[in-house]
Amino acid sequence: MFVKNAWYVAGWSHEIGRTPLERWITGDPVVLYRTEGGRAVALEDRCAHRLAPLSMGKLVGDAIQCGYHGMTFDCDGNCVRLPGQAAIPKAAKVRKYPLVERFGWAWIWMGDPARADAAAIPNFFWLDHPEWKPVGGTIYCKSNYFLLIDNLLDLSHETFLHGSTIGNAAVAEAAVETEADDTAVRVRRRMPNCAPPPLFRKARNFAGNIDRSQVIDFSPPCYAVVDARAVPAGTNDIDNGIEWRVINALVPESEGTTHYFWAVSRHFALDNRELDEIMQKGVVHTFGEDIMMTEAQQKRMARPSADPKHVTIKADAAPIAARKIVSRLVQNEASAAA
Amino acid sequence: MFVKNAWYVAGWSHEIGRTPLERWITGDPVVLYRTEGGRAVALEDRCAHRLAPLSMGKLVGDAIQCGYHGMTFDCDGNCVRLPGQAAIPKAAKVRKYPLVERFGWAWIWMGDPARADAAAIPNFFWLDHPEWKPVGGTIYCKSNYFLLIDNLLDLSHETFLHGSTIGNAAVAEAAVETEADDTAVRVRRRMPNCAPPPLFRKARNFAGNIDRSQVIDFSPPCYAVVDARAVPAGTNDIDNGIEWRVINALVPESEGTTHYFWAVSRHFALDNRELDEIMQKGVVHTFGEDIMMTEAQQKRMARPSADPKHVTIKADAAPIAARKIVSRLVQNEASAAA
Amino acid sequence: MFVKNAWYVAGWSHEIGRTPLERWITGDPVVLYRTEGGRAVALEDRCAHRLAPLSMGKLVGDAIQCGYHGMTFDCDGNCVRLPGQAAIPKAAKVRKYPLVERFGWAWIWMGDPARADAAAIPNFFWLDHPEWKPVGGTIYCKSNYFLLIDNLLDLSHETFLHGSTIGNAAVAEAAVETEADDTAVRVRRRMPNCAPPPLFRKARNFAGNIDRSQVIDFSPPCYAVVDARAVPAGTNDIDNGIEWRVINALVPESEGTTHYFWAVSRHFALDNRELDEIMQKGVVHTFGEDIMMTEAQQKRMARPSADPKHVTIKADAAPIAARKIVSRLVQNEASAAA
Repeated sequence: MFVKNAWYVAGWSHEIGRTPLERWITGDPVVLYRTEGGRAVALEDRCAHRLAPLSMGKLVGDAIQCGYHGMTFDCDGNCVRLPGQAAIPKAAKVRKYPLVERFGWAWIWMGDPARADAAAIPNFFWLDHPEWKPVGGTIYCKSNYFLLIDNLLDLSHETFLHGSTIGNAAVAEAAVETEADDTAVRVRRRMPNCAPPPLFRKARNFAGNIDRSQVIDFSPPCYAVVDARAVPAGTNDIDNGIEWRVINALVPESEGTTHYFWAVSRHFALDNRELDEIMQKGVVHTFGEDIMMTEAQQKRMARPSADPKHVTIKADAAPIAARKIVSRLVQNEASAAA
Repeated sequence: MFVKNAWYVAGWSHEIGRTPLERWITGDPVVLYRTEGGRAVALEDRCAHRLAPLSMGKLVGDAIQCGYHGMTFDCDGNCVRLPGQAAIPKAAKVRKYPLVERFGWAWIWMGDPARADAAAIPNFFWLDHPEWKPVGGTIYCKSNYFLLIDNLLDLSHETFLHGSTIGNAAVAEAAVETEADDTAVRVRRRMPNCAPPPLFRKARNFAGNIDRSQVIDFSPPCYAVVDARAVPAGTNDIDNGIEWRVINALVPESEGTTHYFWAVSRHFALDNRELDEIMQKGVVHTFGEDIMMTEAQQKRMARPSADPKHVTIKADAAPIAARKIVSRLVQNEASAAA
Repeated sequence: MFVKNAWYVAGWSHEIGRTPLERWITGDPVVLYRTEGGRAVALEDRCAHRLAPLSMGKLVGDAIQCGYHGMTFDCDGNCVRLPGQAAIPKAAKVRKYPLVERFGWAWIWMGDPARADAAAIPNFFWLDHPEWKPVGGTIYCKSNYFLLIDNLLDLSHETFLHGSTIGNAAVAEAAVETEADDTAVRVRRRMPNCAPPPLFRKARNFAGNIDRSQVIDFSPPCYAVVDARAVPAGTNDIDNGIEWRVINALVPESEGTTHYFWAVSRHFALDNRELDEIMQKGVVHTFGEDIMMTEAQQKRMARPSADPKHVTIKADAAPIAARKIVSRLVQNEASAAA
């Protein structure tokens, strides 16, 4: 079960062009393409006639023609050509999804189009702001999206899973503060006077210890943004420190698979190309470790076995709060539908 | 659910020899082999003792010996040897299926043997008649067999899917006539004065436009024969035209997989070996496109998603009529069994 | 359904070291490792916190630290460290399994630890006795473990499946005697004055025929030991004959997969290295044929099809008796649990 009345990242703007792109989001098949005028379009990727994927067809002007029997749909999803037949039945249409491009991402609304308000798109300005420098990418993950949200809301795992990049002993032992309400969860962690982890040393040539902090913001249905900072210990010298945002969109493809769109945008050394590469490589390595772990959890959950109970610890406060928010949204939608 | 009281193509005669061949038909495992005298035999491919595939065993004279414990069955399916035991239990037998070789194909009857009448085998004489020249082959397809029958009964798809071989714009726009009764469906399509599609130009060096026509005959449970013709436009000059039959046996292996036995037999240029190759290559390419599409449909049907409705159009008249015939046969068999 | 209150082979002692080893037994995930002092340990391979495999973590002294959030368990399965939290909840533990090393194998008890009595481990002394010389290995098999027990309790299959190693015509036709009680099954087969099969000829250079015999002992839940002997026909000259034990542990990983731990230990020519290789190669080849067959049976059982009935023959007496013993044990455990 997924929240439907929500903005999901459907892809990077640069992925969408004049070649139709198939992407499944919250269990539904979507075809993405761009009109001749450059507007990005999202339709149901399933011909109204025989369920063939429209993404296997081709663009004819701004319309998309099914590659099987040629039924053609305009970018509102209405059939505009039905070869061999003049009268077009009313039912000959596919669903059109609201789609908005912002911050370099294309945002899709999977629920009731009447409720799609672009103002509700989260403000991820770091992705394309001139004072910020992002690197980013997409990872395909064979686990439920919420295992990845759990992962991001309990960063104590950095110590154990990411020792070669962003983990140090301080992360796991630091006390965390969790705040949650009906719409968001925030986790704070302060790690004063600790040794800088490897990727931090590569990014900034710290001579000694650092004061490190993290603020992680969850917003439904599937977003986690990490505000990460580090300064030379005992100073507030952010000009010689690190400040970056890790923007994570964990978009469910199906119950067991996720499109993980990510970016890390830094607020320093914007023109340092070498640092771009260091960051890209470091983050891809780090997230690869996360994926390996959530995929192992997913497999373990799928195999039948005796009674696998969890124990809940303090660090779970944020993941539990986030799950509660999303569950409530799903329930509300189910109630409204019934 | 499949029709059982019907003749299915089990394979090409040349596939059946002294090495046992495993083939699943309508969900049942069959082993095919040839006696020393040359008669083709079809038995249940599952030892009566421990369910081992008899096709993993070996022939001993006209009998087949299980490769596990040596239980041996004659070509009527009766156990004739049971190693280590003199008395053979009555239950020690496997099912024998009626099998008839005709037109180069081996035809199997999957239902009540008492009802197997070889006179009911469809008359596909084009496969081995001296005035016709066939090419042919077998394709394994991961889709339900009826998606392939749908495909053949609505050839408007040639325009969109087979542009590089047999498709031209005329096919999709031509009016079709559909006739159906309780036992057969026929579709006719006339395409006067149209440009010859690529494979037609290769087969006959048409100088200008052609008058093209198709008659497609469906007969249950899984056969579609296309009578395809083309002459120089405005003439009836079939001697300089094309006449061929496309014979399609869409034999269900399981609910989701199909053995597609096909032949295209032409009534001209019988001795042209080069044309054999052109036809073989062109048809394999064309049917490969069909398979790609029906497999995509099959996947789309298998994945859970919101409410995938079809819209029905005029071109669906024939596929719908064909499904009705087969559904009725399946229902009749179910009623008779109950 | 598996017997739980029983000793299963978890692996070879030499497999267990300071790198955690994942192994699933009777459907449950187990991690195996060795303490600094050299003791072998078996814990539930699923962190109490988030179900991550502990086998993806690392050893810290005698404890194992989860690779995700660092929860650490001692070799009794109790949590001894919970990063970021001083108080450790009572529920923070994983299951510890009784584990005993004997005969070069590590034996695990999957049921109630209070009932684990090492005296109940079967006496497979041939595996490490100075007067016996074993070869051995592990095979992974995609079939239910009982298909392999069936296989070993009806060796008539040697004739048909293993003609290139241990099969000769005599095996299948020999009369067998089966004895069974509530705890064990024994099958005897005498094959006087028969031709030696290929592997026997390689092992002992028999000039003429042999007197061959087999005694197969099944003991629950999953063990079959074959006492195989051969002497020059008409003699009792075991000093120039063959005597070996085939020790088979068919350990269920899941309902459809099995870890097959095996050894063949001979009582002659102990120092013949060349013979070690001949035996190893011959047995691996032979068991490969068995696996091929049980995997084919397993597939055949999994595919839907009409009414696959077995017929039961004399040779099935032992497999049926063995299944009865195990079924009763499973039922008893289910009754005790209810």
